[in-house]
Amino acid sequence: MKRAIVMLSGGLDSATVLAIARSEGYTVSALSFDYGQRHKDELAAAARVAEHQGVTDHRVVRIDLSAIGGSSLTDPSLAVPTHAPTEIGRGPIPTTYVPARNTVFLSIALGLAEATGARDLFFGANALDYSGYPDCRPEFVAAFEALANVATRDAVEKGARFKVHAPLIALTKAEIITRGTALGVDYGMTHSCYAPIAANACGRCDSCVLRARGFVDAGVPDPTVYADVDGSNGKR
Amino acid sequence: MKRAIVMLSGGLDSATVLAIARSEGYTVSALSFDYGQRHKDELAAAARVAEHQGVTDHRVVRIDLSAIGGSSLTDPSLAVPTHAPTEIGRGPIPTTYVPARNTVFLSIALGLAEATGARDLFFGANALDYSGYPDCRPEFVAAFEALANVATRDAVEKGARFKVHAPLIALTKAEIITRGTALGVDYGMTHSCYAPIAANACGRCDSCVLRARGFVDAGVPDPTVYADVDGSNGKR
Repeated sequence: MKRAIVMLSGGLDSATVLAIARSEGYTVSALSFDYGQRHKDELAAAARVAEHQGVTDHRVVRIDLSAIGGSSLTDPSLAVPTHAPTEIGRGPIPTTYVPARNTVFLSIALGLAEATGARDLFFGANALDYSGYPDCRPEFVAAFEALANVATRDAVEKGARFKVHAPLIALTKAEIITRGTALGVDYGMTHSCYAPIAANACGRCDSCVLRARGFVDAGVPDPTVYADVDGSNGKR
Repeated sequence: MKRAIVMLSGGLDSATVLAIARSEGYTVSALSFDYGQRHKDELAAAARVAEHQGVTDHRVVRIDLSAIGGSSLTDPSLAVPTHAPTEIGRGPIPTTYVPARNTVFLSIALGLAEATGARDLFFGANALDYSGYPDCRPEFVAAFEALANVATRDAVEKGARFKVHAPLIALTKAEIITRGTALGVDYGMTHSCYAPIAANACGRCDSCVLRARGFVDAGVPDPTVYADVDGSNGKR
């Protein structure tokens, strides 16, 4: 039995990664984080996605990154920025970057891998249609994998090799959606918005903009429920 | 102003590291973790040590590693092992190893460093008088530092270089005690025991054995309060 840990935020990317890992024959432990994010709605989405994809081991680890702050995702006093679609990923890294977040998350995934005998970690990083986050790039994935293979008892004593899979890292959002749709992912269950309004997507944050454009480019109907912020009934 | 993050467990090693960082002129944020450890008494020690050494920014981040398990420090159903003094660090890595623990802790320290503008992380790893933990070795420290310098916005955008200091890594426990004593560390405030009995040291776990031997070898009176487990009033 091949075991894997899949980091499952509840968003579009991680739901696709989960389907990829399962299609490759892994028995999956899904791992989500309640880290003080303002878009905690994603955790309900993660639970829905895990259940829909037949995952029986879904863990939510709480870690209060708001004690650290420094991000508009964990500090309510900072506004979530918006950008024109063509600007996303081209300017400075936005305040939605959470300091060292993916390093923290992968570290905990590594601990769970060691505790459960898994050697494979799956991670929905994407370095194409993204906001330029440093911890979504191939250099980061490679450096974490190198660390994992000196940091752990299983690596030192058993010669285990941990592998960090980032199967989306070079795909466009449209390619991700096409891939996931073929694998049966129900994107209506997922949540990507950074700044949800009554659990519905704002349609304006970078994450919403990238996601919406992905559905258009993929030619797949967008199942996202948008908040009716401007009386347009979510159409914009 | 030079800012540093010091990981402060409340044990002998980290109390010494804190004194070293302060002696080098750093303004310190001390960081402790409430991670589901059975020896939570160390957190009270961390608070005492931070206050005694004049640290005004001491943060305790909660993260429930018992959701991961795999260690006798986080799973109450596993016993904390004991070894003869000469066996410690020579056999298999004991169950007191917490999967990926120091990777998780350093990751959070890195996030705090980025959020506070610090570039220096201090870590009480020791690879001499220790239990053979993989994440206390120089290879681990180097790999984490390499990761930090690709994982973060400050590294990517500002060319910042993060440095992981492990000033105790090649010292014996006696050398650590000698150094800390010279810097004014009050070891009576620290807590090292993995399996305390009513907040007092058991005197038998690996951590107690290494510590007690360190005081003897350093010729420094041992201020540790041992539990009176066998009617010997803590003398053994």
